[in-house]
Amino acid sequence: MFESAEIGHRVEKERWKQESQRLRQALLQAQYRLLQDARSAVLILVNGVDGGGRGETVNTLNEWMDPRHIRTEAFGPLTPEDRKHPEMWRFWQVLPPKGRIGIFFGSWYTDPVVSYARGGETHDRFVQRLERIRQFERMLVADGVVLVKLWFHLSKKTAKDRLKTLQSDPKTAWRVTPHEKDNLKHYERFIEVSDEALRKTSIGASSWLVIDGSDPAYRTLSAAQHLLHAMEQALAQPVAEAPAPDRVVQQPPFLALDQRSLLNAQDYTRRLKRSAYEDELETWQGKLALLSRDVRMQKRALALVFEGMDAAGKGSTIRRITQALDARFYRVVPIAAPNENERAQPYLWRFWRYIPALGRSVIFDRSWYGRVLVERVERYCQPADWMRAYGEINEYEEELSDSGVVIVKIWLAITPEEQLRRFREREATQYKNFKITPDDWRNREKWPQYERAVEEMIDRTSTQVAPWHIVASDDKYWSRIEVLRHLCQRLEAALER
Amino acid sequence: MFESAEIGHRVEKERWKQESQRLRQALLQAQYRLLQDARSAVLILVNGVDGGGRGETVNTLNEWMDPRHIRTEAFGPLTPEDRKHPEMWRFWQVLPPKGRIGIFFGSWYTDPVVSYARGGETHDRFVQRLERIRQFERMLVADGVVLVKLWFHLSKKTAKDRLKTLQSDPKTAWRVTPHEKDNLKHYERFIEVSDEALRKTSIGASSWLVIDGSDPAYRTLSAAQHLLHAMEQALAQPVAEAPAPDRVVQQPPFLALDQRSLLNAQDYTRRLKRSAYEDELETWQGKLALLSRDVRMQKRALALVFEGMDAAGKGSTIRRITQALDARFYRVVPIAAPNENERAQPYLWRFWRYIPALGRSVIFDRSWYGRVLVERVERYCQPADWMRAYGEINEYEEELSDSGVVIVKIWLAITPEEQLRRFREREATQYKNFKITPDDWRNREKWPQYERAVEEMIDRTSTQVAPWHIVASDDKYWSRIEVLRHLCQRLEAALER
Repeated sequence: MFESAEIGHRVEKERWKQESQRLRQALLQAQYRLLQDARSAVLILVNGVDGGGRGETVNTLNEWMDPRHIRTEAFGPLTPEDRKHPEMWRFWQVLPPKGRIGIFFGSWYTDPVVSYARGGETHDRFVQRLERIRQFERMLVADGVVLVKLWFHLSKKTAKDRLKTLQSDPKTAWRVTPHEKDNLKHYERFIEVSDEALRKTSIGASSWLVIDGSDPAYRTLSAAQHLLHAMEQALAQPVAEAPAPDRVVQQPPFLALDQRSLLNAQDYTRRLKRSAYEDELETWQGKLALLSRDVRMQKRALALVFEGMDAAGKGSTIRRITQALDARFYRVVPIAAPNENERAQPYLWRFWRYIPALGRSVIFDRSWYGRVLVERVERYCQPADWMRAYGEINEYEEELSDSGVVIVKIWLAITPEEQLRRFREREATQYKNFKITPDDWRNREKWPQYERAVEEMIDRTSTQVAPWHIVASDDKYWSRIEVLRHLCQRLEAALER
Repeated sequence: MFESAEIGHRVEKERWKQESQRLRQALLQAQYRLLQDARSAVLILVNGVDGGGRGETVNTLNEWMDPRHIRTEAFGPLTPEDRKHPEMWRFWQVLPPKGRIGIFFGSWYTDPVVSYARGGETHDRFVQRLERIRQFERMLVADGVVLVKLWFHLSKKTAKDRLKTLQSDPKTAWRVTPHEKDNLKHYERFIEVSDEALRKTSIGASSWLVIDGSDPAYRTLSAAQHLLHAMEQALAQPVAEAPAPDRVVQQPPFLALDQRSLLNAQDYTRRLKRSAYEDELETWQGKLALLSRDVRMQKRALALVFEGMDAAGKGSTIRRITQALDARFYRVVPIAAPNENERAQPYLWRFWRYIPALGRSVIFDRSWYGRVLVERVERYCQPADWMRAYGEINEYEEELSDSGVVIVKIWLAITPEEQLRRFREREATQYKNFKITPDDWRNREKWPQYERAVEEMIDRTSTQVAPWHIVASDDKYWSRIEVLRHLCQRLEAALER
C-alpha cells in the first residue's frame, strides 16, 4: 500500500500558494452545499505514522472550512464508561448526521492494528476484526455516509531523520516523546500490519488514500484535494436514488405453498387459570428479582426485545417484568417511527444509543426489527435496505453479545381472531380507547404480509447468541408466565457462563 | 435458519397436479428466455441433509426443463488432479456460461461444514472459509451469475423416522447406507454448524432458501417456484445496466500534485555492458534451471506475471527465462482481449483455467491485471468493476499462494522516450514491423492515465504473498538480468519455506 508514498513527493512554495487558495474556496463551497443537500454525512478518518502530519491536517481542514459544521473527535485510550460498552459504541455516539462533517483522529483501526502489531492478539483475531470493520463501513456507506480514509505515511528513513532533527535542536527536542521513540523501534512491524489492514479494508465503497507525509505542503494539498473530490462525487449523486441494481434473489413474497407459517403453526389453545397464574407470577417474579440482583450481573447487561402484532400484549407483559426489577437499573424504551435527528443517522444509530451499560437492563417495546417488519411491509425503505438489515442486525447482536449483553428476543404471537376480539374490546372500553387507532385496522389488513416478514425475520435472525422465542399469547396468563420463565432461564444460563 | 422448515409443510395431490403443470411450463419458458437474453448464468446449489430430497429435486429440474442447456455436476471427494490445484479450482472449471443453467449437487459449502462439524478444523478457520465464500459469491453475482442456493432440511425426528421406515421394509433397507446412519448420530452438530454457515452467507446478493424436505410434493414445488422467481427477476433487469450507484470514493484520476509517480521515480540510467550481460545471463539461467528442477518444486507451482507498457520488452525477457526451463513443465500464456466464450464467464474465469498444477510453471505475458490497466483506462468496464477487481485479485492470489503457487509479478518500466525510440526502430526494421500497430500509438497518448493506473495497481495489489517488482528496463541487458535475479531469489525463498 505504501509504495507510491515513498518516492519523495514535494510541492514548491508558489504551487502551494495557488493551490491552497483554490482548494480552500472550493472546500468551503462544497461544505455548504453538503449542508444544504443534507443527503450525506462526510466522515474523515485520519490515521498514519507519528510525524506524518495527522494533527496539522486536522487543524488545516478546520481552518479552511466552517468549523461550526465540523465535529472533530480524537480517540485516546478507553474511558471507564467506554469499557462498559461494546467496542464500537464510542464511535457510534459521535457519528456526524447528514449534512455535517466528522473528523476522527484515530479510529476503529487503531486498536486492531496496535493489538496485533504488539503481539497481544492472534492473526486470526486480527482478520476477524478487519472483517467486522468492513461490514460496519459497508453499512455506513449504504446508509449515506461518505467515508474518506486518509493514511499519512513516512518511510523509515524519513521518520528516523525527523526524530533526529527534532532532538538535535533544544527548541524542538521536547516534541519527541518516549512513546514516539518506542514506536520507531517497531516501525517495520507496524507498517507490515497496517499494510494488511489497509489492503483488506480498501473495498470499493471505502478505499484508503495513502499520503506521503514528508512534505507539509504536499500532504495538506493531497488530503484537501481528495476530500474535495469525495464531497463533489457525493453531491453529484442523482437525487432520486434508484435501488441498487443488484441481482438479488429475494425470497418469494408470498407464504409457503401450503399456507403454513411459523405463526399459524403455533399452539394457541394453551391456557392458565387465574389462580394458577397468580401463583406462578409470584414465583417467577421472585426468581427474576433474585437473578437481576445477582452480583455476576455486574459483568452482564440485558437487552430484552418485545415484538408482536398490534394488541399482542407487549405493554402488559413488560409491566409484569418491570415489577420485579429495581427501577435504578432498568429502562423501558418504546420504539416509534424515527424522528428527524434519527433519520439523519444510519439506521442502527438510535439503538446503539440505548445499549445498556454493564450491570443495566433495557427493555425494548419494539426494536431494530422494525426495519424488516413495518418498514419492509409498508415500503418505508427499499428492498435492498431491509435485505441487508438481516446481516447488519446479526452482526450488531453478535457485537453486543461479545461485550457481555444478554439478548432475549420475544415474539408475542396471537391469532387474527384474538386480535379482532381485543380491538373490539378496546373500542368498547372507554379507558382503553386511546390504544386503538385507524393504523391498527390498516395493519390488520396486511396480516399475511406481516406473517411472511415475521417468518423470514425469525429464520434469518434467530442465532445461537440471540435466539427468538415465539410465545403463543392468545391467553395472556399463559403468555406472561412463559415469557418470565424463558427470561429467567436465559439469564441463568448467561450467568453460569 | 431452520425454524420455519420444521413446522411440517405438506401439499395435497390435487394441488401438486395443478402447480407442477404450471411451474413446468413457466420454467421451460424462462429457461429459453434466459438463453436468448444471454446476460445471466443461473447457478443452483443443492445442499442439505440426507433424505431431504436433493437428488430427486435435481432429477425433476432436469426433467422439467431442457436438459441440453443444463449442466449438472456432483462434487464428491477430491480427485488426485483436484488436489494439485487450489480448492475452488474444480468449481471454476464447470461454471455455467451466460444463458445457461448449472446445478451443483454439493458445493463449496460441503467441505467447510463437514470439516468443522467433524472437528477437523477450528472455528476461526471455519469463519475465514465462510468469508472467502462470501467474497467469491459477491464476485459471481457482480459478474452476472444468478445464484440460487437451496437447502433441504429435515427435523431430527423426521430424519430418524425416515431411516426407521426404510430399514423396516426389506425392499427399501438397502437404501440406508452406514454413512447415513453415522450422519444421523451427528445430526445436532451438523445442523448447528450448517445454521452458522447459512446465516453468515445469506447476504443480500445470495440468500439461502431453506426448504422443508419431508413432503416430496412440497419440496419440489417450493424449489421450482423459487428458481422461477429468481430467473424472472434476472430477466426483468433493465438491459442497459447502470453502474451501481455506490457512494464510492474514487482515487482522484490524476497524478499526484507534484507529478511524481512510482514509474517516473525509477532510476532508468542503470546499464550493463554486453560482455557482462552475457556472463551474468549464463550464471542466472543456470541457477534458474537448477531451481526449477529442485525436487521441492513438486510441491510448488510458479505463476510468473509480466506487465509493462508496449515495447517494454516482455517477449524478449520471457524468452531468456524459458531458455532455462524444461519445455515439458512450463507454458507461456499470452493474454489478449477475451473471446466470446470468455466473455460469457466471470472475469477471472479464464485465468483460473491456466493455473499451473503443482510441479508446473505458467508464464503470463500480460494477465488478470488487464482489468485495472487497459480495461480501466479504455473504459471497457465500469469504474465499479475495476474498483472491486483489486480486492478480487488479492483474494485470488492469496488462494493460489495458499495452495502452493509462487506468484512473481514483474512490471517492466520504460521511459516514454525509450518507448518512442523502440517504436521508431520497429517501424524502420522490416522484420520488426509486425510488432507496431496504430493501437500502440494510441495507447502512448494515454501514458499519464496508464501511469496513474499502474501506480494504483501496485499500491493496492503488492502484497506479502505476491509483491510487485518494478524493473527499470530502458537498458534491456540490465533489465533481463534483474528479472532473472529476482525470480531466482523468490523461488529460493519459496523452496526454503
